[in-house]
Amino acid sequence: MKEKLWNHITTVRKQSPLVHNITNYVVMNNTANALLAIGASPIMSHAHEEMVAMQQICNSLVINIGTLDTYWVKSMHLAIEAANKNKNPWVLDPVGAGATPFRDEVLSELLNLKPIAIRGNASEILALAKHNKTQTKGVDSTASSLDAIDAARFLNKQYNAVVIISGETDVIVSDELEVKLNNGNLLMTKITGMGCSASAILAAFLAVIPESAEAAVAATALISIAGEISAKSCDGPGSLQVSILDKLHSITENEFLKHLKIEN
Amino acid sequence: MKEKLWNHITTVRKQSPLVHNITNYVVMNNTANALLAIGASPIMSHAHEEMVAMQQICNSLVINIGTLDTYWVKSMHLAIEAANKNKNPWVLDPVGAGATPFRDEVLSELLNLKPIAIRGNASEILALAKHNKTQTKGVDSTASSLDAIDAARFLNKQYNAVVIISGETDVIVSDELEVKLNNGNLLMTKITGMGCSASAILAAFLAVIPESAEAAVAATALISIAGEISAKSCDGPGSLQVSILDKLHSITENEFLKHLKIEN
Amino acid sequence: MKEKLWNHITTVRKQSPLVHNITNYVVMNNTANALLAIGASPIMSHAHEEMVAMQQICNSLVINIGTLDTYWVKSMHLAIEAANKNKNPWVLDPVGAGATPFRDEVLSELLNLKPIAIRGNASEILALAKHNKTQTKGVDSTASSLDAIDAARFLNKQYNAVVIISGETDVIVSDELEVKLNNGNLLMTKITGMGCSASAILAAFLAVIPESAEAAVAATALISIAGEISAKSCDGPGSLQVSILDKLHSITENEFLKHLKIEN
Repeated sequence: MKEKLWNHITTVRKQSPLVHNITNYVVMNNTANALLAIGASPIMSHAHEEMVAMQQICNSLVINIGTLDTYWVKSMHLAIEAANKNKNPWVLDPVGAGATPFRDEVLSELLNLKPIAIRGNASEILALAKHNKTQTKGVDSTASSLDAIDAARFLNKQYNAVVIISGETDVIVSDELEVKLNNGNLLMTKITGMGCSASAILAAFLAVIPESAEAAVAATALISIAGEISAKSCDGPGSLQVSILDKLHSITENEFLKHLKIEN
Repeated sequence: MKEKLWNHITTVRKQSPLVHNITNYVVMNNTANALLAIGASPIMSHAHEEMVAMQQICNSLVINIGTLDTYWVKSMHLAIEAANKNKNPWVLDPVGAGATPFRDEVLSELLNLKPIAIRGNASEILALAKHNKTQTKGVDSTASSLDAIDAARFLNKQYNAVVIISGETDVIVSDELEVKLNNGNLLMTKITGMGCSASAILAAFLAVIPESAEAAVAATALISIAGEISAKSCDGPGSLQVSILDKLHSITENEFLKHLKIEN
Repeated sequence: MKEKLWNHITTVRKQSPLVHNITNYVVMNNTANALLAIGASPIMSHAHEEMVAMQQICNSLVINIGTLDTYWVKSMHLAIEAANKNKNPWVLDPVGAGATPFRDEVLSELLNLKPIAIRGNASEILALAKHNKTQTKGVDSTASSLDAIDAARFLNKQYNAVVIISGETDVIVSDELEVKLNNGNLLMTKITGMGCSASAILAAFLAVIPESAEAAVAATALISIAGEISAKSCDGPGSLQVSILDKLHSITENEFLKHLKIEN
């Protein structure tokens, strides 16, 4: 599988998919830059009037509820409907699932609209599956990704979506495979929006790679390895945020394969 | 007092308070990163439907009117009411006070809802106290912090809040103390949102430290010293913004105490 | 003309115009920092209630439709009306022109409100002029700036605005001059919001320099040269974004004139 993963990364670079992001205010700049760095093209847009037209020119969609409100929830529904009609894959990032009843109601509705993939931290995946073994601490996770594997399997079966649990170990769960990635660095948890960037990168990969589970592994490995390499030479979370963008852009096959720590 | 200040910094690192931010679009990313860097957890949220629930899981609240509109003003009121009910402290950052009548009306209402602390630049503090000796220049200050001490004392008495004037000299005014901090660096005025980060950091400290005036001194000293140290080795405002996040995360007791320039 | 361009840069540094930005969520932080770096003062504001008052204290206005919705479109109209009344120049950045019918309708209306300058990439300028020789790819350009010169001339005649086409070669088109700038670096296209910063910088220059075409050349040259110099020593798009802010702040007359590659 290792060589295939790198091929997927080059496919994104060559095909440069256009990814429509309905995401939160906190991470928009970094998410757009992460997409540009991997060779994709970002567009951020939420006006009800243009959700259908946007999905006609875009190749995929990210729905991230980080700073949701009712206007944006309506935008999400309009964009998802258009994405589904155009057979554009869409990714759900359930930021802060379990934090408030409002988020959970919105997520219940979104889950039924057939995301191709769901990516969250362990607390969020547990909350989505209503495995209430954990308490969400805002948008950070208080659980380990390994604790959420059953919840991920449940979501995968129930909604037929690839599920990615981000954490010290990233876990990718689909019908076909269950993969653990032991890349990344703890300092990545001290930067806001790493997970949001991971979801957007995922949407770029899913736009151009038909094998969705493999695409999810490649996308997840890419950002985790970029973070791991960058963390070695940075001075803290500020410079890590900057270096990850540099590394997403410059990473070579050798670097990628040398660092990849995959269990399947 | 010096040793106490460092203890407060370690308390925040250990207890990692969850801070609810209703803040402006410009600074959300940096504010979230500043909170993560000091060891706190940020959440940004403004949906009316979740203001009450958010304050049930959060430890404090920041209200920053930088890019206000009527929807967000209503969010602020809902969140403050819930914070007050839960005895969560909340901080007011009156960005651009005095710039428009709309801001001043909104601020008049917010002031009456009992912020535990108010942090602004001299122009904003003067405008809040209706000491119209100054003209606001957008969100930058045209007055010196020392010119605003009377206004700060007035606000402290009137609203029973700790008042922090940011500037070349930072001034903290409470019932119990009046402290001047001569830290920081002029280049910090060339980065947007330094004050906004200071207010959010303040909310993190107030969440876990009962002595609110001391908490304000510690929070203010932390960001000013981080900026001062970072400015020495950076190449301009872009790299300073990055380095401050690194330094907020890595600063040691020795560094902090060595640089602290406090008058009380 | 070369010496005049540097004079314009120092004029902005000395007069520090206050620029009102109605811009998109993605770039707000960087745009504010770019304005601070060149010596101007930014304010971001969109509340209907304060558009008139804001234009009374500001010196110019940027209208950027990157993440528009109906509320913000109304803000734009209110601010433009107030700007025109106060004889404050305003700049139009037609982000994603041609991407959706909604954007094109909004842009049709805005064009008629007399922007002093219009800045976009080639795809956007072609779409604005309804020269449908190109397809917009989200917010990136698929056309070369040289392909859009006729469209720029048409827009200049039709709306009496200076038109700036950003690209590998930047082209400035006005009644009086037509200038090509061969500065910049390809890596700048891998950072989000470079064009948005260019538009905001343009608004700062137009606020204090009566010769609008020359102001446009100076503003465009400044960011392109800052990018070109920064690209030489950066490690990728993340560090380039940071370095450009440093260089906008520190650039000297010697550096500027040495790098300037102008054809007129």
